[in-house]
Amino acid sequence: MPQHLLSMQALDFDALTAILDRAEALRHAGDCRSHLSGHAVCTLFFEPSTRTRLSFQRAAQRLGADILNFEAATSSATKGETALDTLKNIEAMGVSAFIIRAREDGLVAELAQSAAPGTALINAGDGRSQHPTQALLDMLTIREAKGRDFSALKVAIVGDILHSRVARSDLAALRTLGVQDIRVCGPANLLPSDDTLAGCHVSHDLDEALSDADVVMTLRLQRERMEDGLIESLDGYHRDYGITAARMAGAARDAIVMHPGPLNRGVEISDEVADGPQSRILRQVENGVLVRMAVLERAFA
Amino acid sequence: MPQHLLSMQALDFDALTAILDRAEALRHAGDCRSHLSGHAVCTLFFEPSTRTRLSFQRAAQRLGADILNFEAATSSATKGETALDTLKNIEAMGVSAFIIRAREDGLVAELAQSAAPGTALINAGDGRSQHPTQALLDMLTIREAKGRDFSALKVAIVGDILHSRVARSDLAALRTLGVQDIRVCGPANLLPSDDTLAGCHVSHDLDEALSDADVVMTLRLQRERMEDGLIESLDGYHRDYGITAARMAGAARDAIVMHPGPLNRGVEISDEVADGPQSRILRQVENGVLVRMAVLERAFA
Amino acid sequence: MPQHLLSMQALDFDALTAILDRAEALRHAGDCRSHLSGHAVCTLFFEPSTRTRLSFQRAAQRLGADILNFEAATSSATKGETALDTLKNIEAMGVSAFIIRAREDGLVAELAQSAAPGTALINAGDGRSQHPTQALLDMLTIREAKGRDFSALKVAIVGDILHSRVARSDLAALRTLGVQDIRVCGPANLLPSDDTLAGCHVSHDLDEALSDADVVMTLRLQRERMEDGLIESLDGYHRDYGITAARMAGAARDAIVMHPGPLNRGVEISDEVADGPQSRILRQVENGVLVRMAVLERAFA
Repeated sequence: MPQHLLSMQALDFDALTAILDRAEALRHAGDCRSHLSGHAVCTLFFEPSTRTRLSFQRAAQRLGADILNFEAATSSATKGETALDTLKNIEAMGVSAFIIRAREDGLVAELAQSAAPGTALINAGDGRSQHPTQALLDMLTIREAKGRDFSALKVAIVGDILHSRVARSDLAALRTLGVQDIRVCGPANLLPSDDTLAGCHVSHDLDEALSDADVVMTLRLQRERMEDGLIESLDGYHRDYGITAARMAGAARDAIVMHPGPLNRGVEISDEVADGPQSRILRQVENGVLVRMAVLERAFA
Repeated sequence: MPQHLLSMQALDFDALTAILDRAEALRHAGDCRSHLSGHAVCTLFFEPSTRTRLSFQRAAQRLGADILNFEAATSSATKGETALDTLKNIEAMGVSAFIIRAREDGLVAELAQSAAPGTALINAGDGRSQHPTQALLDMLTIREAKGRDFSALKVAIVGDILHSRVARSDLAALRTLGVQDIRVCGPANLLPSDDTLAGCHVSHDLDEALSDADVVMTLRLQRERMEDGLIESLDGYHRDYGITAARMAGAARDAIVMHPGPLNRGVEISDEVADGPQSRILRQVENGVLVRMAVLERAFA
Repeated sequence: MPQHLLSMQALDFDALTAILDRAEALRHAGDCRSHLSGHAVCTLFFEPSTRTRLSFQRAAQRLGADILNFEAATSSATKGETALDTLKNIEAMGVSAFIIRAREDGLVAELAQSAAPGTALINAGDGRSQHPTQALLDMLTIREAKGRDFSALKVAIVGDILHSRVARSDLAALRTLGVQDIRVCGPANLLPSDDTLAGCHVSHDLDEALSDADVVMTLRLQRERMEDGLIESLDGYHRDYGITAARMAGAARDAIVMHPGPLNRGVEISDEVADGPQSRILRQVENGVLVRMAVLERAFA
């Protein structure tokens, strides 16, 4: 039965763990090209995102699937057509899994309501809402470093939470996996005021947030936030919220540092940390292909 | 012997029927990836068209061909180079079938005169002239619904015929398959004044055109036609030429409705009809992959 | 041991000859899709170049490799990210050969210093510096026509040498293969004043340069050179440096003419020569796929 992946909330502990276990198994698998051979997947990107697209493409290639690419930004395809009509059309071409990136919150879930029964939709990021495969790769990366029991972990999420679909999906996944101590840190005007942060320790003091932390997840700062007047300067942001070696001194000795990329070096993270021994940034990318393979297999299951 | 597909006029009854028969056979075929394995096709699009490109790509993938994509709009490739030089270059890379979309009428036929003997060119739409694979998928869709004998069919083509390569190819195909009663309906300034409509019942009254029709083919209205002053308003166009459930009441009870996409919902067609039981719009897309597979096989025959 | 290809200077006589020999062997090889099956290559183009990309893609397809495409110009991928971070990220996705086109001189060599031990970088053109696979295909084309002993060849390179990475790589390759008599001809302000032309016969008189030449390599004139004030007019350039049948009368009877493409017909070359019996222009393109196959195999060796 093909399965959508629309949000992290839709995955309970067992479903989430099953995907991570499968991703881990695929790490050591040999040639997987028979797994989805003869099947077609489409990357349907209404907002450009090269890295996410490449990661999904690599996952699909490793599984032997055929790949069609649709990018609204560079294509003539929409021509006033609705996103649903675009989806239904490509579905009619024999494509039964869609990897969808959208500007609008909730668009992927909305499209899922009209997809054919045999079609699976994978949310590859929609608005500020969700980016579930990013959260899955983050969880796999934490589990590799810290083990399967998340209950005692201290996890700090730092930066622009307000605009971040990554943070929203990570928060959901961390809760599902039983993390009790989640600290969220960022400028007041970049933190959401709704119930997104329910149960989190909210702080504007980075040292407090990092204190004894096992996992530090920093977020990309959209440079547009300066133009929007939400932050004063990149330097000031770095001083207050940048992850540096000095700041990391307060975290647990074996803390790991993660970032969804692409990096603004010298803004949300220093070179020393990004390229240092605590960084798991490239491992996240590597794990990204594995969780996406697992998610694609599930989409065709 | 590799065979071009430059226009619908180039296919006689037997050749056209052979392609439809082959497409129908491919509908029920299993794995076809050995058919064109090791062969390379190139989509050579001098005008962007995502849907047509995706449909041909899917067809080529299902046949196991390698695919190269060239898009003039997003590429640096032309750099003042002639279309023929571009073609000859990619041909020299070992590509022997080209799927060509062009802005200029007749460009594909012109290029065919200089292609190597082993190279086949497929016209994927040139200017206002021809779009033969669209006509083939339309004929397959009609044949599925109405049977192999087209002679007694009443077919209405509605909309902007003047600028439509789809209409020109459809008219040729319908005549070749023996349709006697073709009605053409649209605003006077969107109907061609040359011999394109020879033998057709031309009307500006939609009810007259749809009366007892078995097949209703509506065309996409380019929104630019309003800027061009060719139509007054989209609302007015919808009122006079939009296919709605009320209008369809005058057609045959089991009439089918077709549209080449993408849809301007509420302009040339209402939601109710587009998504209703008489609509064959998504079946057209599905059939598009099949006829393109048949045309690609023929190109390498 | 995977091997980079960063510049022509990095290949000695034996290494260069081995690539040409392998390319020649591949010309007559059958199905090569097992050679790189399961391996992934990425075209990482920070400057657009459709032809070079298509040629490498065709080479990778013929070898059965998976291909990812990254184009900075049309992508959102950089977002302020460094080229090295982009490379390291895609490397982490399991890609171990990169085909890189860059605007900056030396960028590819710089990236190579930070690539993982198992990763190979192929320079597909960087700034004005190097375009080694173009030189390799040029050498294969000369060898086909003139035999393996290059020592007695008279080779003329005509046009804008100053801005040409093709010329720089060709000069290095010709020297490595033992050519003694290299003539370089172009307007004074389009010739480099450093040691690029050491050992060459420099001339501003085309007839002198072509006299008894066995090989005539003409270069693409960037039309921007006129805006830059470096040439007066395209007509004047054609009169002084255009390769025409009349000019070719002074070359050796069996001289061949080459051009890296795309052609400015009527500027650096006349139609008569470009399409005439001495032209090897399309053979260069054909050979391009073969040398790139050989270079990709070496990258994964």
